[in-house]
Amino acid sequence: MEFIINQEILGQGSLFYQEEDAFSGVNKIAKKVMHDVELVFGDAPQATMDRTKLGKTAVLYGTVGHSPMLQELEEKKLVDLSEVTGKREVFLFKVVDRPFEGVEKALVIAGSDKRGTIYGLFHLSELMGVSPLVDWADVKPKRKASLSLSGDLTYVSKEPSVRYRGFFINDEWPAFGNWTMKRFGGFNAEMYEHIFELLLRMKGNYMWPAMWSARFFDEGPGLANAELADEYGVVMGASHHEPALRYGEEYKYLRGKDSKYGDAWNFVSNREGITKFWEDGLKRGGKFENVITVGMRGEQDTSIMGKESTLADNIEYLRDVIQTQNKLIEENVNPNLSEVPRMLALYKEVEPFFYGDENTPGLMNSEELEDVILMLCDDNHGNLRTLPTEEMRSHSGGYGMYYHFDYHGGPVSYEWINSSYLPKVWEQMTMAYDFGVRDLWIVNVGDVATQEFPLSYFMDLAYDFDKWGTNAINSTELYTRQWMERQFDGVFTEEDKEKVFELLTGYTKIAHKRRPEAMHANVYHPVNYKETDHTLEQIDYLLNIAEELYEKVDKEDFSTYFSLVYYPAVGNLNLQKMWLLTTKNHYDAKLRKMEANKLSEQIKGCFKKDRELVEQFHTIDDGKWFGMGLSEHIGFIHWNEEEAQYPILMNVLPANKPRMVVTIDGTERFCEGPEWHDNKLYLNDFLQPDIEEASFTISSVSDLDAEYEITCETKWLTCSKTSGSLDGKEKTKEDIDVKIDRSAMNGETEGRIVVKMSIGTCEIIVNATNEDFSEYPKMTFVDTNGYISIEAEHFSQRKDTTNQQGDINRFKVLEGYGKTRSAVKAFPTTSYYTAGDDAPYLEYQFVVQEAGNYELEFYMQPSNPVAKDNTIYCGIQVNTDDINIENVLPEGYRVGGDDWAEGVLDNIHKHVSKINCKEGLNTLRIHAVSPGFVLEKLVIYPDGKKPANSYLGPTETYFVGK
Amino acid sequence: MEFIINQEILGQGSLFYQEEDAFSGVNKIAKKVMHDVELVFGDAPQATMDRTKLGKTAVLYGTVGHSPMLQELEEKKLVDLSEVTGKREVFLFKVVDRPFEGVEKALVIAGSDKRGTIYGLFHLSELMGVSPLVDWADVKPKRKASLSLSGDLTYVSKEPSVRYRGFFINDEWPAFGNWTMKRFGGFNAEMYEHIFELLLRMKGNYMWPAMWSARFFDEGPGLANAELADEYGVVMGASHHEPALRYGEEYKYLRGKDSKYGDAWNFVSNREGITKFWEDGLKRGGKFENVITVGMRGEQDTSIMGKESTLADNIEYLRDVIQTQNKLIEENVNPNLSEVPRMLALYKEVEPFFYGDENTPGLMNSEELEDVILMLCDDNHGNLRTLPTEEMRSHSGGYGMYYHFDYHGGPVSYEWINSSYLPKVWEQMTMAYDFGVRDLWIVNVGDVATQEFPLSYFMDLAYDFDKWGTNAINSTELYTRQWMERQFDGVFTEEDKEKVFELLTGYTKIAHKRRPEAMHANVYHPVNYKETDHTLEQIDYLLNIAEELYEKVDKEDFSTYFSLVYYPAVGNLNLQKMWLLTTKNHYDAKLRKMEANKLSEQIKGCFKKDRELVEQFHTIDDGKWFGMGLSEHIGFIHWNEEEAQYPILMNVLPANKPRMVVTIDGTERFCEGPEWHDNKLYLNDFLQPDIEEASFTISSVSDLDAEYEITCETKWLTCSKTSGSLDGKEKTKEDIDVKIDRSAMNGETEGRIVVKMSIGTCEIIVNATNEDFSEYPKMTFVDTNGYISIEAEHFSQRKDTTNQQGDINRFKVLEGYGKTRSAVKAFPTTSYYTAGDDAPYLEYQFVVQEAGNYELEFYMQPSNPVAKDNTIYCGIQVNTDDINIENVLPEGYRVGGDDWAEGVLDNIHKHVSKINCKEGLNTLRIHAVSPGFVLEKLVIYPDGKKPANSYLGPTETYFVGK
Repeated sequence: MEFIINQEILGQGSLFYQEEDAFSGVNKIAKKVMHDVELVFGDAPQATMDRTKLGKTAVLYGTVGHSPMLQELEEKKLVDLSEVTGKREVFLFKVVDRPFEGVEKALVIAGSDKRGTIYGLFHLSELMGVSPLVDWADVKPKRKASLSLSGDLTYVSKEPSVRYRGFFINDEWPAFGNWTMKRFGGFNAEMYEHIFELLLRMKGNYMWPAMWSARFFDEGPGLANAELADEYGVVMGASHHEPALRYGEEYKYLRGKDSKYGDAWNFVSNREGITKFWEDGLKRGGKFENVITVGMRGEQDTSIMGKESTLADNIEYLRDVIQTQNKLIEENVNPNLSEVPRMLALYKEVEPFFYGDENTPGLMNSEELEDVILMLCDDNHGNLRTLPTEEMRSHSGGYGMYYHFDYHGGPVSYEWINSSYLPKVWEQMTMAYDFGVRDLWIVNVGDVATQEFPLSYFMDLAYDFDKWGTNAINSTELYTRQWMERQFDGVFTEEDKEKVFELLTGYTKIAHKRRPEAMHANVYHPVNYKETDHTLEQIDYLLNIAEELYEKVDKEDFSTYFSLVYYPAVGNLNLQKMWLLTTKNHYDAKLRKMEANKLSEQIKGCFKKDRELVEQFHTIDDGKWFGMGLSEHIGFIHWNEEEAQYPILMNVLPANKPRMVVTIDGTERFCEGPEWHDNKLYLNDFLQPDIEEASFTISSVSDLDAEYEITCETKWLTCSKTSGSLDGKEKTKEDIDVKIDRSAMNGETEGRIVVKMSIGTCEIIVNATNEDFSEYPKMTFVDTNGYISIEAEHFSQRKDTTNQQGDINRFKVLEGYGKTRSAVKAFPTTSYYTAGDDAPYLEYQFVVQEAGNYELEFYMQPSNPVAKDNTIYCGIQVNTDDINIENVLPEGYRVGGDDWAEGVLDNIHKHVSKINCKEGLNTLRIHAVSPGFVLEKLVIYPDGKKPANSYLGPTETYFVGK
Repeated sequence: MEFIINQEILGQGSLFYQEEDAFSGVNKIAKKVMHDVELVFGDAPQATMDRTKLGKTAVLYGTVGHSPMLQELEEKKLVDLSEVTGKREVFLFKVVDRPFEGVEKALVIAGSDKRGTIYGLFHLSELMGVSPLVDWADVKPKRKASLSLSGDLTYVSKEPSVRYRGFFINDEWPAFGNWTMKRFGGFNAEMYEHIFELLLRMKGNYMWPAMWSARFFDEGPGLANAELADEYGVVMGASHHEPALRYGEEYKYLRGKDSKYGDAWNFVSNREGITKFWEDGLKRGGKFENVITVGMRGEQDTSIMGKESTLADNIEYLRDVIQTQNKLIEENVNPNLSEVPRMLALYKEVEPFFYGDENTPGLMNSEELEDVILMLCDDNHGNLRTLPTEEMRSHSGGYGMYYHFDYHGGPVSYEWINSSYLPKVWEQMTMAYDFGVRDLWIVNVGDVATQEFPLSYFMDLAYDFDKWGTNAINSTELYTRQWMERQFDGVFTEEDKEKVFELLTGYTKIAHKRRPEAMHANVYHPVNYKETDHTLEQIDYLLNIAEELYEKVDKEDFSTYFSLVYYPAVGNLNLQKMWLLTTKNHYDAKLRKMEANKLSEQIKGCFKKDRELVEQFHTIDDGKWFGMGLSEHIGFIHWNEEEAQYPILMNVLPANKPRMVVTIDGTERFCEGPEWHDNKLYLNDFLQPDIEEASFTISSVSDLDAEYEITCETKWLTCSKTSGSLDGKEKTKEDIDVKIDRSAMNGETEGRIVVKMSIGTCEIIVNATNEDFSEYPKMTFVDTNGYISIEAEHFSQRKDTTNQQGDINRFKVLEGYGKTRSAVKAFPTTSYYTAGDDAPYLEYQFVVQEAGNYELEFYMQPSNPVAKDNTIYCGIQVNTDDINIENVLPEGYRVGGDDWAEGVLDNIHKHVSKINCKEGLNTLRIHAVSPGFVLEKLVIYPDGKKPANSYLGPTETYFVGK
């Protein structure tokens, strides 16, 4: 017989059994779950401490060691607590019969510890279809008639993959700050109630609170924030520069000439005061569950000792600091230091102090750091930095990772809206895990709002790495569908859900090409390879979907759709669109196309839409989200928003004659057909054998009526129009499609189209090929137009190897992970390979027309090296030449340097190698060498003859079988 | 007793005595003069062939050898014809008593030849105050009560200075062509009637007719044009590529397979046909007075032999051509070849054929060219090219010069409107004359309209070089005043005439800095040295004057004012203004100043005004000038107007916060006062001891109300405002003047002004000097700000020398001849000097703070070398160092090359020399060496530390006594 919850059962008596001995936090969470039950079934369940008031069906929850009821059930052999006892954050979920008198069927939720029970309770909510965002984003669960669980259900959850998992509310002004001030009156417990609930429902257990201006221990009011966290089992941590349970701004408030803490944030000149400051911090907060930050940094994220100090000075200084802190912790928190979770952030200048150099040993392996979690970090832009070497991985405290979905800093901040892309989070965080970073995962989510989607993913990945991690390659689409299902079950039809899916993947993929804050008019090339137009088409497609769903969604689900999907998607897309239109506007203005003036109006429209979106976000749901849209997001020219520059709108003045200009789409070629200057244009698209349609555009340069006549002088070409007119006002351009009929070419390779205009005549020379390349193997790229562009996944062959442990070394395709298509990466990700020996490789085949020197350009995910040597090697081999082991990073590459900055903005690293090719068929092998080599695209061209500029790189060229 | 004309006398009988024997053209000119009399006195005079019908007062005109009347008067001893007989184009102007029965007083006008008589007749008109433009531009003479000439007046005119003087109607489409088609129905005698009258009234005698599409000998109709010219004594010539009295397009109409002239413009392959073509041309036109072009060029101004031909091939080809032509002339025009005026143009590729090279003697001194006028030319942009060397000057045929006020060709055409500047015409054409170019002066005036002012000057200079030429240095202002007086006597008050004078000099001076067609947004620097703002101020001053006079002028004089002054001035100025506003607009937009949007509206205003001006020019006076404004004039990107580009208007979107930006006027320094980035600005104007006022500007970056507060923390500085606000809509900027009180500096040299804005605070560091430099001699330039800029006329000393002929060699100041002030040039202009020996020099004194290497930059008029070696040398001497003889032209300079093109567009040549300076006072001597060295400005700065970019160069810096 199944365990069933339905309205009838809810009417039969109390459903939830409360114990006096239970953790108060657990009982509070149970109430939240009871509210979920009400949302799902329409009726509120009752809770009781009196077993006689229970109905025939009951939910019995408790924590091992804090629940006489569980003990009783175990004694009755109804449950086997040994399945959870002693485990970390685990719960048993079991349907039992007749646990007590009068109760026929019960669901037992037995947590191994406080958080185990809480996760168990929320597991029930999840089974009812309640989203973890139910409270945070008002996600209304689908109403159900009943929930039934199999009568023999026994489920024991796994220990979470990562020990401490949580997020960091950061850079909280202006958005989060205004939001909480207006909604809750401060950074107080009323607000944290919602934040903690969000964290726990996502099965997180760890949090860094807002700390720019807020003082977590003071503003609860008083200790209320800390007490609430402790009650809920939320482990509090602090960022890298907040040691000894003292949050960011505290010292500023407490320092002073007459302060017992002195008036200098300096452990040399004010040792006594700073020590006292830490001591009091530990006394105040040490009783709660924390991961205590150790170490010390300068104020406001700066280095602490002067520029003249030596490395050794700094190392000793830091050692002294940590020794002092450890001692204070022993005295004030727990004499057994190994039981106190502590963390040292290897961040910015602390990193060299940890590693030291050849002459000066750093803090690595020092006894002060025993049992301390060493927190590593990404480069603030989602790319991991140095990872533990194999020998380092045995460090007793383990490792943590500080990751960013939001950042306030160089080269350009991104704080407004989600712009993180799940495949990237997967690729980077699985590598962290593979490298042994498993004790602490914290992600900076800025203001939280709009980050719900990647945050959910990050938390789920940390909670159940087996399910979503390294072995679940290419699972982010599945995750996205599940996540969407969780928020919109019953809201949208299947067809519309597919649209939501497209929206979520679509907008984040476009943000992955370039974050909105980093966009400006000169990013994408206005015409080459039509990359701007194609991106605009994608954007418009997604915007249309967004608007369509906006119109369709029910009133009661509107704000969920708006805040979780529409606003982040449309906010992103509209902004990207505004800049792309500006790119086009500037280009068209330079050609004096009247079209420029239309674009300028469209840009204004996007600009207005941007403001309206924020305004709407601030007003829906009675202003629930007020403030959350306040971050600057347009036209950064510095790392922060100071002096940010909005688009310049370029308008043109109409020519005094009915002039027009012909442009070859996808190229910079243009011509007004002048009598005395070059009036020839070249259309080369048909040089690629798979292309059967190309186009050119005729645009107005004046606002006068102007006619054109197109004479296609070649019988194997047809144009979509033979004549027409533009008025330069309403109709400012005409796109002309050109089609080729290769069967009629008869050995000809040059066609000719003449465009006669009111002023000027322009001649389009159409170069085409009708060669048969079927002699070459499938997947052979053939240079027919001066270069070859290969999407990395289009290798012709893949060679795997087996390592000593019997694991297969293999390049795998990371779907969707690339600016244009996908990427390839060698697995296992932690290995260094010897090319030609144990290294797996990929083989590409291509044909060039002439033997000689060529350049091979790689487009790579902007990975930072995992090791301190600042290199990423791979092996390049052409035909039977030796394997060339090349560092694909520029000389002197370092995180924070110019190359790095360009890489994180462009989200690409490029590297050019010189290769020698023979005439005809060539084979290129790419051998794995260092970790972190993630290849997206390869471009091959004759030495010095780089294909036309672009942001995304040349679109893929022809290959046999395309 | 005086000779008097007044209404009473006009009523007493016929005034003009006509002779049957007179040239018909002379009688027709007399009728024009009679019409002038009517205009001046209100009543029409009568003419008669019957002496009895003459009144008591008479005008008696005739040509020596064609006037029995003159013979009679000579016999009566009333006139002495020997004073004019045998002279060229000379007239006697004498008041006589009782020449005939009944005539008491007569004015005798006796011409040495047909043109002498005509000039004599028009001399009477001039004495009556009639402008030479009376017919062409409807200049109404001032009404007079009487004209009286002294009873003993005897005046004999001089032979004109230049033998053939005239203009060339060229590039006649679209303007002149449309004009004459609409007004006269073709390029016919009805039109040439006016052109010839204009030429003769200006005392010209020579003309090249329109020839792009027109055929002078065919369209009169028939020979009417040629016959009319001959009747009026107008000597017809043709341009460089129209030999043997055949005008440009003729061959195109006559050629063909079956044509007797063959079908190839090639003297090798179609010798017979071409010879016949020339022969028939000479037969047709040889009977009229002509200067016959000899030689041959390719069609449409191209070279005639292929690229593979050798120099010798070409020379022999050309020799053959000329021999043939000479022979045809002997046979068909005059067997005495020396009596036939002939001309060979040393233009484009003909030039090397004339000079040859070391191995191949050219046509120079060949017998074929005996008595042939060798026509030289400018570089199409008003700068002479190669001039005759001393030995060449003895060539029997003499030399001619083809000059341009209009040009259709590279680097950029200028055909719309007058943009020539009299001081330049003086400087160049006097040099031509000095070098012996005295037999033919022809100026390309394009469509004639708007060129009346410089054309008058050119004709007067050619007619009376003694009066206006080399010895009349700095006389163009006087000329301008006289010219203006002639057109506007009685129209404007003296005060307003001064304004007309300012307008004429002002607009041409601005066009001299850059022709309107060559303007674009990136010419002047938007902010440096305030050159854009200062030029805009000048333009606005002149535009205001133009509008003021526009309002004032009487209806009957309106069209004269409009066509001769207002339209060319305002057309020029408005266009320059439009581009300068665009320059500012683009700059302000880049800073996101809201001001940019206002500028964009102003640009639109100028664009509209430009169209309205042309429209008005086309409609005034019942469309008299219709067509004359049709030439393109905006945004050339090629040599011709194809694909011309109008200004791009840049608009900005308002920031979402009340942001403002502070800019230091005259510099590129700007700042919004960011908290996290550099917020310091430097105001360095007061480093120049003579500057007592500087400024900065606060501009809106949003359309929100924004306040600023200015705190001047330095007591010796005052700001014109201490606080205020901008609204970003109406009020988008505030200019803040900063004044210095040096008496209060007390040794301080750094001041500080803090500008606190709604968003941001900006700190202005004010650097100042209060040093006393009076220890140095007057005219000593002192480097106080990193560089020294010297207007060339501000030398401290001038050293003259005397040559063997006893002439003084001397640098003279050419007033107003420079982009910023004036220029210096050594005289005599034909001499080569030896620096340190016979070379005159100028001495400049300057002080630098540190000894070391400096750069000395010259700003020079873009003269081309007069000799074939393509160099212009001068001597540079610093202190007691050796004189450095430097070629101030770039290596490989040649007319037509890139350096040349930049020079004619910018109207400047720059040259940088390295010099070594000592600390403190230095002396710099500039020694004359080659002809053509015309220096405007000198800039001195430490090696590699070029002052900020600009178009006009740094404004002059401080000198002692400034």
